[in-house]
Amino acid sequence: MNVKLLSRLLGILALLIGSVMLLSLIWAGPSIGYHTDAVVEHTAWETSGIRGLILGSIASWSVGGLLMWLGRGAEGRLFRKEAMAVVGLSWILATVLGALPYVFSGTSRGPSMRYFEQEVLGQGVFEQGNQVEPLVLLSRHRAYVWSGWKKSEGYSSDQYKVIDALCRASARGLSRKDLIATTGLENAPQIFTDLGRSDLDNYLIGPGEVANAPADRAANYRQRWVKMGLIDSMFESQSGFSTTGATVLNDLEDPHLVPHCILFWRSSTHFLGGLGIIALFVVILGQGSAGKSLMRAEMPGPTQENHTSKMQHTAWLFAATYIVLNVILAIVLFLLGMSIFDAICHAFATMATGGFSTYNASLGHFVADGANGRTIEYVVMSFMLLAGTNFTLLLISVMGNPLQLLKDVEFRTYIGIIGGVAIAIIAMGSLNGDKGFGSIEEAFRNGLFQVITIITTTGFGTVDFDQWNHFNRGILFVLMFVGGCAGSTGGGMKVIRYVLFVKILRIEIEEAYHPKIVRQLRIGDKPVEDQNLRRSIMVYFGLIAALFALGFLFVVLVEPDLTWGSTAQNKLIDSASAVASTLNNIGPGLGLVGPTQNYSSFCTINKSLFIILMMLGRLEIFPVIVLFAPRFWRDQ
Amino acid sequence: MNVKLLSRLLGILALLIGSVMLLSLIWAGPSIGYHTDAVVEHTAWETSGIRGLILGSIASWSVGGLLMWLGRGAEGRLFRKEAMAVVGLSWILATVLGALPYVFSGTSRGPSMRYFEQEVLGQGVFEQGNQVEPLVLLSRHRAYVWSGWKKSEGYSSDQYKVIDALCRASARGLSRKDLIATTGLENAPQIFTDLGRSDLDNYLIGPGEVANAPADRAANYRQRWVKMGLIDSMFESQSGFSTTGATVLNDLEDPHLVPHCILFWRSSTHFLGGLGIIALFVVILGQGSAGKSLMRAEMPGPTQENHTSKMQHTAWLFAATYIVLNVILAIVLFLLGMSIFDAICHAFATMATGGFSTYNASLGHFVADGANGRTIEYVVMSFMLLAGTNFTLLLISVMGNPLQLLKDVEFRTYIGIIGGVAIAIIAMGSLNGDKGFGSIEEAFRNGLFQVITIITTTGFGTVDFDQWNHFNRGILFVLMFVGGCAGSTGGGMKVIRYVLFVKILRIEIEEAYHPKIVRQLRIGDKPVEDQNLRRSIMVYFGLIAALFALGFLFVVLVEPDLTWGSTAQNKLIDSASAVASTLNNIGPGLGLVGPTQNYSSFCTINKSLFIILMMLGRLEIFPVIVLFAPRFWRDQ
Repeated sequence: MNVKLLSRLLGILALLIGSVMLLSLIWAGPSIGYHTDAVVEHTAWETSGIRGLILGSIASWSVGGLLMWLGRGAEGRLFRKEAMAVVGLSWILATVLGALPYVFSGTSRGPSMRYFEQEVLGQGVFEQGNQVEPLVLLSRHRAYVWSGWKKSEGYSSDQYKVIDALCRASARGLSRKDLIATTGLENAPQIFTDLGRSDLDNYLIGPGEVANAPADRAANYRQRWVKMGLIDSMFESQSGFSTTGATVLNDLEDPHLVPHCILFWRSSTHFLGGLGIIALFVVILGQGSAGKSLMRAEMPGPTQENHTSKMQHTAWLFAATYIVLNVILAIVLFLLGMSIFDAICHAFATMATGGFSTYNASLGHFVADGANGRTIEYVVMSFMLLAGTNFTLLLISVMGNPLQLLKDVEFRTYIGIIGGVAIAIIAMGSLNGDKGFGSIEEAFRNGLFQVITIITTTGFGTVDFDQWNHFNRGILFVLMFVGGCAGSTGGGMKVIRYVLFVKILRIEIEEAYHPKIVRQLRIGDKPVEDQNLRRSIMVYFGLIAALFALGFLFVVLVEPDLTWGSTAQNKLIDSASAVASTLNNIGPGLGLVGPTQNYSSFCTINKSLFIILMMLGRLEIFPVIVLFAPRFWRDQ
Repeated sequence: MNVKLLSRLLGILALLIGSVMLLSLIWAGPSIGYHTDAVVEHTAWETSGIRGLILGSIASWSVGGLLMWLGRGAEGRLFRKEAMAVVGLSWILATVLGALPYVFSGTSRGPSMRYFEQEVLGQGVFEQGNQVEPLVLLSRHRAYVWSGWKKSEGYSSDQYKVIDALCRASARGLSRKDLIATTGLENAPQIFTDLGRSDLDNYLIGPGEVANAPADRAANYRQRWVKMGLIDSMFESQSGFSTTGATVLNDLEDPHLVPHCILFWRSSTHFLGGLGIIALFVVILGQGSAGKSLMRAEMPGPTQENHTSKMQHTAWLFAATYIVLNVILAIVLFLLGMSIFDAICHAFATMATGGFSTYNASLGHFVADGANGRTIEYVVMSFMLLAGTNFTLLLISVMGNPLQLLKDVEFRTYIGIIGGVAIAIIAMGSLNGDKGFGSIEEAFRNGLFQVITIITTTGFGTVDFDQWNHFNRGILFVLMFVGGCAGSTGGGMKVIRYVLFVKILRIEIEEAYHPKIVRQLRIGDKPVEDQNLRRSIMVYFGLIAALFALGFLFVVLVEPDLTWGSTAQNKLIDSASAVASTLNNIGPGLGLVGPTQNYSSFCTINKSLFIILMMLGRLEIFPVIVLFAPRFWRDQ
């Protein structure tokens, strides 16, 4: 293993990340709302954001400098092993460095609640002079205590459950009214009577909400803002670099909680992640015949070049295409009425098939805008489609041979799946009278958008598909495992693997009764050279299934039922969807992690698991697990 | 394709099935309860059962005779193709013939409800002289109407939903009280007010339950017994032959609904199915090196014999072992206090890893018996363990080399998985205070029993694991995909495939960074000869995953939400578990098909799907799908 070269390459990455961080500083200046229709005016410098970015940048440079120094005098070239190590390690490094701006800026994840025992006596009357005792300050960590709840303060475990449910619901950013409705606590008045309060609503009165509420207690009363911890920050960072788009942030729209410049860094990680994947595909998959088979088309380019420089040529070509598409989309979105800030962020999220938005309602924020909103949806749909297409094919099409697209079996299957599933979803949604299927145009738009956003693994939300009928929810769940085309920024298992799976299956069936027959696997007209490809494809299916099953069991084991509030009826399916969604780099799932929810409710251990799953899925497993094989480091 | 030979072999099978049917007639005579502690005395001949068995037998003989006649003068030997065709076709033939006794005897599946519009006016007072109009007679077929409910009778779709929920709940055999509680209708009084009834309870009064209820209307009032249709019967037959143990019968304990002789035929299908699998493994898997690898150990026997007679020798040896184990278990169960009838039926269900019981509470019926019941549980556990073990290994152990068992990697993994999962389940169940984990002995017994019953794919119920905590439910769900050892009567994917999967994975990981390395796959100390085995194993994982996903989507699409009563919150997970359970030949699943439930609520189309899934799972997919490959029949 050429450790020096490895160190040098990782050093370059760290310096690059440190530099890109500074670009986000542009948005730290005072402005009357970068958002397209900002409610909160912002007239001061975002000092916390500036601190976060500069400290993060300094740290990245330091790490980069150290790695460069360690790797001084590196020579030799990248062999397959080094390439795999670079990919795996660079993703880990990027995740850690990318998390620093969140940590250093003290970005807030969302609100949490505090409860006091004695502040309310009657209707809005506050007792004076008493020591206010916290009933229980429920950090998430309390939920990790397994064998029942500590009862030292004299409350029953039922009472704790109710309090915890409230706390968790409120941590999801719900209003007092929604909070009570969501947790179903209107059905549990007895528990609150036992707590000494007959009026639940009153119990939750916040500072300033009634006349006599003592203003001086506001700071530690009812709600506080929870800053992102290291795991939260790494989750957000990994989600960005892996172009997943899952978030732990409850409120994106208040710059006092999440500064604009941090929000821009968040979207930048999508851009860098997408760029990395596009370039790395050339480096990794371009090597070996199995990789060539997956990429299928040989890249156009000067054929006299040697292998390495041809690869570099291709990588630059890919990177240029990716950047140009980002720029075009940003301009189009700006012309459609988005602010520059929003246009760039959403372009990044679209072309990287990431899905980070700058609004709590995701892309659905613009839908209310009428005609313009709808146009934005259709534009984003088109660019998601492109982002999920093999970049080699895109290049060939742009270079004058658009028919090549239609000839490609993967692209045809990709379009076929989108069409078929969209028709099924539109039909079932309309028949069932689901929300978002009111008119034909609405049904068409919403159905198609959700199918594209899931299959390309973008995960933008425009409508809450978790409220649709069970078939639509189920088919979107299964669709999570399909993913985009190979050689695109899309995640998931990739359409080509399914195409090959069906082909392999046909051959296997024939071989089952004709053991001596030998058939060749073909993609399009070309026979596949690599005899191992058949096995590799199937191993990948098995690995994804195994990771999914083990991840699912882990989440169900570790996550307390109380994360779901007062009832955990859907724990199994919600956990399964969270694992599927992170493993395939989608973002939203079902229930607890549905399109209107986020991942903040999960406990830290599970957030750590999701970080690992996102990386495994993004790098197609092998570059990550080889890092943990001792022989990988030992062997020559 | 040697069609004559095929026809002849199938003919023999049909004659065999027809003959075994007649054996069940022994139990058609009058008796004071064949059940161990019968409540219903039975002093008449079971005429309907006799009719069913004799007509079924005549039909089987006729089919058998016809096939024998068509196959007269057959010669030649069984090649791989013919062997596959025999396996696939014989399972289809057995399913159809095995269904006939249910159809011809008019066995009842369970109760259904009728509603009348005008029978109730006030508190238990029935209006006289009015024409009684059926409000809606809800057969399952009504639910297939997709686009809303027919409203010709002037009821809103909400009202229909409530009525349908009631009807479905009652079809599960609930009492009036449970029925109202289960469907959650106490929360929907408005709907019933709209229906013209303020008193829901009153509305459901049955004949004889209040003084004035007119007795002459009893026949078409409130409840009727639904006879098994062809699909129901084929479901029960396939479930028996495939040793799944899923049932559509709601009440097994009333001989007026299900005669004893039919119940015995039902258990006999388990016995025949298990015998078939044990014998077929020799015929099919004994051929080809991949098969040999899966079977692993060469059979002991006179080595001078040629291949065919050696195979026959092995098949007889296996059959004899299987039958002896059945006899031993039946005797032990009889000595533990079961009636002869129950002892034989439960022995059949255990050794075939089927799971059909003769009681509604399954094996849990005996648990109430105290010490004896517990002993029965431990005995059944031990024999399930044996039934899930490779029969070659069992034979070698019995023949004097029991250490061979411990040397076998599959057996060790099998025991390891059982131990590990049982510890996890016992720990989580105890910590959570689940039902069935009261004392240490109880927790140990219930935890271990459920793990063994699921991994061996038997599916006996002793405790309702669906009421356990989510982790226990989830891990049992995942365990469904494991299954017993290869060469046992157990279904599922088989432990050896997982052992090989992990080994293949290790090789693949190494090959990922060392493309030129060649490692050999080994089982125990022996290298695997067949180079295709690595791929075949992985293809099987992919196929099971694909069948599971497609089956899941199909069930969710076709099954109306109303099957779940007034709320279908768990439709996705319940449907997934039903598909997993039938595909892996378990029996019980989660929720709607939980241990205390059954498959009767599913619509006919989905029951048909389950029939196919059970057969696919039992025959390890290929012998079934090749039948639908035109080339299979055309090629030489």
